[in-house]
Amino acid sequence: MKRRRLWTLVVWGSLALSGSLAWAGDPTGAQTLKSDPGLPVDYVWVLICGFMVMFMQAGFACVEAGFCRAKNVTNLFTKNVMDFVVGSLAFWALGYGIMMGTDWKGLLGTSGFFLSGDGYDVGNYLTFFWQMVFAATAATIVSGAVAERLKFQAYLVYSAVITLFIYPIYGHWVWGGGWLSKLPYGLGHLDFAGSGVVHAVGGFIGLAGAIVLGPRYGKFDKNGRPRAIPGHSLPMAALGTFILWFGWYGFNPGSTFSAHHLRISVIAVNTTLAASAASLTALLIILLKTRRFDLGMALNGALAGLVAITAPCAWVEAWAAAVIGIVAGFIVVAGVYLLEGLKIDDPVGAVPVHGFNGIWGLLAVGIFADGTYGNYSIEPPFVKGLLYGGGVDQFISQLIGAGALILWAFGCGLVLFKVLDSLMGIRVEPKEELMGLDIIEHGTPAYPEFYTMNSQT
Amino acid sequence: MKRRRLWTLVVWGSLALSGSLAWAGDPTGAQTLKSDPGLPVDYVWVLICGFMVMFMQAGFACVEAGFCRAKNVTNLFTKNVMDFVVGSLAFWALGYGIMMGTDWKGLLGTSGFFLSGDGYDVGNYLTFFWQMVFAATAATIVSGAVAERLKFQAYLVYSAVITLFIYPIYGHWVWGGGWLSKLPYGLGHLDFAGSGVVHAVGGFIGLAGAIVLGPRYGKFDKNGRPRAIPGHSLPMAALGTFILWFGWYGFNPGSTFSAHHLRISVIAVNTTLAASAASLTALLIILLKTRRFDLGMALNGALAGLVAITAPCAWVEAWAAAVIGIVAGFIVVAGVYLLEGLKIDDPVGAVPVHGFNGIWGLLAVGIFADGTYGNYSIEPPFVKGLLYGGGVDQFISQLIGAGALILWAFGCGLVLFKVLDSLMGIRVEPKEELMGLDIIEHGTPAYPEFYTMNSQT
Amino acid sequence: MKRRRLWTLVVWGSLALSGSLAWAGDPTGAQTLKSDPGLPVDYVWVLICGFMVMFMQAGFACVEAGFCRAKNVTNLFTKNVMDFVVGSLAFWALGYGIMMGTDWKGLLGTSGFFLSGDGYDVGNYLTFFWQMVFAATAATIVSGAVAERLKFQAYLVYSAVITLFIYPIYGHWVWGGGWLSKLPYGLGHLDFAGSGVVHAVGGFIGLAGAIVLGPRYGKFDKNGRPRAIPGHSLPMAALGTFILWFGWYGFNPGSTFSAHHLRISVIAVNTTLAASAASLTALLIILLKTRRFDLGMALNGALAGLVAITAPCAWVEAWAAAVIGIVAGFIVVAGVYLLEGLKIDDPVGAVPVHGFNGIWGLLAVGIFADGTYGNYSIEPPFVKGLLYGGGVDQFISQLIGAGALILWAFGCGLVLFKVLDSLMGIRVEPKEELMGLDIIEHGTPAYPEFYTMNSQT
Repeated sequence: MKRRRLWTLVVWGSLALSGSLAWAGDPTGAQTLKSDPGLPVDYVWVLICGFMVMFMQAGFACVEAGFCRAKNVTNLFTKNVMDFVVGSLAFWALGYGIMMGTDWKGLLGTSGFFLSGDGYDVGNYLTFFWQMVFAATAATIVSGAVAERLKFQAYLVYSAVITLFIYPIYGHWVWGGGWLSKLPYGLGHLDFAGSGVVHAVGGFIGLAGAIVLGPRYGKFDKNGRPRAIPGHSLPMAALGTFILWFGWYGFNPGSTFSAHHLRISVIAVNTTLAASAASLTALLIILLKTRRFDLGMALNGALAGLVAITAPCAWVEAWAAAVIGIVAGFIVVAGVYLLEGLKIDDPVGAVPVHGFNGIWGLLAVGIFADGTYGNYSIEPPFVKGLLYGGGVDQFISQLIGAGALILWAFGCGLVLFKVLDSLMGIRVEPKEELMGLDIIEHGTPAYPEFYTMNSQT
Repeated sequence: MKRRRLWTLVVWGSLALSGSLAWAGDPTGAQTLKSDPGLPVDYVWVLICGFMVMFMQAGFACVEAGFCRAKNVTNLFTKNVMDFVVGSLAFWALGYGIMMGTDWKGLLGTSGFFLSGDGYDVGNYLTFFWQMVFAATAATIVSGAVAERLKFQAYLVYSAVITLFIYPIYGHWVWGGGWLSKLPYGLGHLDFAGSGVVHAVGGFIGLAGAIVLGPRYGKFDKNGRPRAIPGHSLPMAALGTFILWFGWYGFNPGSTFSAHHLRISVIAVNTTLAASAASLTALLIILLKTRRFDLGMALNGALAGLVAITAPCAWVEAWAAAVIGIVAGFIVVAGVYLLEGLKIDDPVGAVPVHGFNGIWGLLAVGIFADGTYGNYSIEPPFVKGLLYGGGVDQFISQLIGAGALILWAFGCGLVLFKVLDSLMGIRVEPKEELMGLDIIEHGTPAYPEFYTMNSQT
Repeated sequence: MKRRRLWTLVVWGSLALSGSLAWAGDPTGAQTLKSDPGLPVDYVWVLICGFMVMFMQAGFACVEAGFCRAKNVTNLFTKNVMDFVVGSLAFWALGYGIMMGTDWKGLLGTSGFFLSGDGYDVGNYLTFFWQMVFAATAATIVSGAVAERLKFQAYLVYSAVITLFIYPIYGHWVWGGGWLSKLPYGLGHLDFAGSGVVHAVGGFIGLAGAIVLGPRYGKFDKNGRPRAIPGHSLPMAALGTFILWFGWYGFNPGSTFSAHHLRISVIAVNTTLAASAASLTALLIILLKTRRFDLGMALNGALAGLVAITAPCAWVEAWAAAVIGIVAGFIVVAGVYLLEGLKIDDPVGAVPVHGFNGIWGLLAVGIFADGTYGNYSIEPPFVKGLLYGGGVDQFISQLIGAGALILWAFGCGLVLFKVLDSLMGIRVEPKEELMGLDIIEHGTPAYPEFYTMNSQT
């Protein structure tokens, strides 16, 4: 009987994540409960983890606004509220169906729009809720890279496009039963909780946006040397990072989509150790360079480690998580300098944190996976990487997925921002940029009673 | 066997919410566990959701203080801490017994004070915890409407009175087995998670308070035209809204009081879509009117949608949640202008958000309930509204409950504030109001090291 | 069958908390699940509560920074990030093995370092995660007492030493099967969720640090009279307190380490009532003294109540929780004045809140335990204190544990800070202290765009 129970769970979990969703159309939940009385704890697990992922929106808002100047803070909070608002509605209408609906040639899903018909089912609503909070996260990541100079109406449009098409289509390839999930190397391309699907997609769209927009006024002097533009509130950025770290415990462990995978404890530990190792690494690198304990880099280091461990978190053990984190710490620091060297202005470091470390996380699966957990399953086959005798197969799948991601996200991003720019102009006027976006776009400063320096450099 | 299990759950859930609580007096929990080994997941669900509801106190504090002026911020945070402190103690002493104790003529409960005697029982403590965090929420809502001019000692008294009597008595009528729950139309008056019991009660007491107090100095010019008094920190208000939105995922889905109702996934989705639809609606209305993307209205829009979906969230499907949200967006904007037209000063918009939209949520049950969920039960009879062939019966019960609520809450509020005013004077001196309440009432400004403009308009 | 199930749980729970951990080396979790299909809900409970405890780091950061001056805010946030970063890595490497590994003569554990070998097991990772977030809390508490004058490099070193040795050794004595847990009075020394192990240990190390460092410049005038140094942001301190209060619902109820102890509902209620009673008490004492509603003392009062109820929360009923809270309110106020009288400068009140009230919590177990819950078990023997006919036995164990704690924590703290001081000097230069630590140690102020008064008194 226990075997049957396990089997049910595996099947159910696989179904939920495989794109071949055949819902019973049980909106009450009574039939679903009878078919598997062990489901309540899975629902509790997935929902509460999903709530924590939704709360990450607050974290992103605080990190981005904290690292930017006071004159753009109303703008950044409005963006971070509205991308969840617009994203959830857009994903409900079309995005979810494109991502998780009936597969069409491995490219996109074609059913399940508006949760209608047989989609009115407790299991389908559960899956939708989970995928929706993830989709909103991807859109939010972009806003950091294009901060302090993008028109708000352009923001609304691109947020919708990301959650309607760009994110769901790539998501379908990996999590919806699309072609990347069926690559013939290893177990196909694997991305446990979304280093690639969520973070790198967001990061590379953001990179495209930062390039199309060009740097903020004053970011580079006339010799092209970068100038530091300090954020207006380090406490806000730090609080945001704590909120994100907290929410990541929903993001990663919750991605088992089942509490019956006791492996969730391993995932929670790995998430912690990678974040800590990356934060310490980034802090020490800057300490050696500047003799200062740099809070901003410690925060971005922690986020970098969290992004990097997101894909491999379920398939590696503690020491590997720490190593993945150390590398993530190096990558985030190097990435910041690289972008500055290329004269690309990413105000909050979204590209190194989410883009570069997202790719690193995908590759790490192929290196460190240790053969103790399967494809969202506690039954074999298990995932094995280079260091555990799995050969290069899994690594090849990871490389292909990473390559596809960069081409898709960066390519779509370039097209999107270029088209929007030619249609409506995506950058605010220079005068507005100097004054800050808050007054003209939103009619109110963030802190109307406080005297602030209008930082123009 | 599965049937028996389901049956146990239904009975237990109904008991817990019906007022006829007959506790076994099992403080260890061993007997209770033996009687139903499926209870642990229900306890985990209810408790964690309850913790999230408690965390909403932080959200209310941030929203209220963010929307008010710096000179009153210490005061607002002190209020928001102390109403939870006083409210939890008052509800423990008397409120809980009045709300959920043995029914007396459908009017109030008469047992279970101080959790003593047979009340020392794991199930009773669970129910108390849940009802206590809800009661504290109702008290907190009022503070927004009376902000920036109410004496602190009056605040302490009225908070206690609300959690001791006003809230529990109305709560008994709906959730404690009182007369509203037994109306002969439909399934009696229904309010799943408290659009009425919690939010509208708080909102209409607040309306009474705002009327008795009169507007803040400078809110209306000598021709009676309203003047905008901007809040001192939009980031604080936005962070507070994110916290409230997060906490609402405890508030609404947790109100099943059982994880065995897999319908919790539907509730989570409905909660999201209503909030998003309302926020977008409110933003767009103000955009059309002013050409500005108004963050404050987007935030209040989200909260309005959350309030409105709170009563119907378990009984409707996704599209209905979105429609309920769109209407909520209109109501909150119209409500703000209506109050200004009536020369009533509600500094943070608590009355339109919680009062008017709370009533809307009650009525929406009678319109959109689709016959897929019962009275906190996954067994029939199910709740059906106008649009799903249920006729007007349920709507009539909702109307009666809404009418009773407005009479009770607004009436008690008027009496309470009038009596307090004649006893102790509830409004601070004009000089103190101009200086801000922080120095005189609390001895310290909120931000002693920052230079702030003392905003007197 | 139900009996067997109960028995499994008791055994498992006891094992997990007894130090004689014999892990199966099951990294997949499939075998563990088969051996007890009821485990998923326990894992969900422990993990989510653990996530909430981790989030308390954000609360500590906000409380400490809010109660300190703007010029040291970058420093305080960097400390609070880095002590979790360093603490989690140090506890992974050595601390956990010293605390929970195979017992050596009742003094320390000697196995399980780096989670390696058979330690790669879902149950072991779960236990590690839980103990790790607790260990990081203890280190964080110290930072409040030594705020605004300690060198950052000294901070990094002492954080590591605490999580590597001081905390785990005392933790082993109580929770790892060491000598205090085996005292022959009552059920041995008991500390349910760590009033002693976590809070008092942190508080008394902090006391040693505050003494070795000496008071901040300007804290005492030349006649030795204390001068108030207001914190720079009361909203930040209040938000931090709300976050801590929220996180405490993970800290205390989660310490059952099992959702099958339905007693978790009682623990949640007790946690609330103690916090509320203590906050109200502290507020009223200061009101009588100064005629002001003091927000800072209300916040510290709530924290004091939370600390005091942490040890007894599982063994007492509601009225006792309220009484424990009232006493905690008196203790925190008296403690603040006592330290000032002794010319000890504890900027945020960490010693009265965590140190003195931690000891009070330990003693309260011996007084109020009512014989309804065992040693992390719902099976007898149950814990009984003075007021419930248990005699003085349990109280004696509590006294011995409290005495050992003070000697160990205060002693180790003195040695640690003295040695560090002679090796590297732990106090910043007077000039740096006047300027604030942010610029010199971290290279950036917390709020670079806001005009602030540099508060030197």
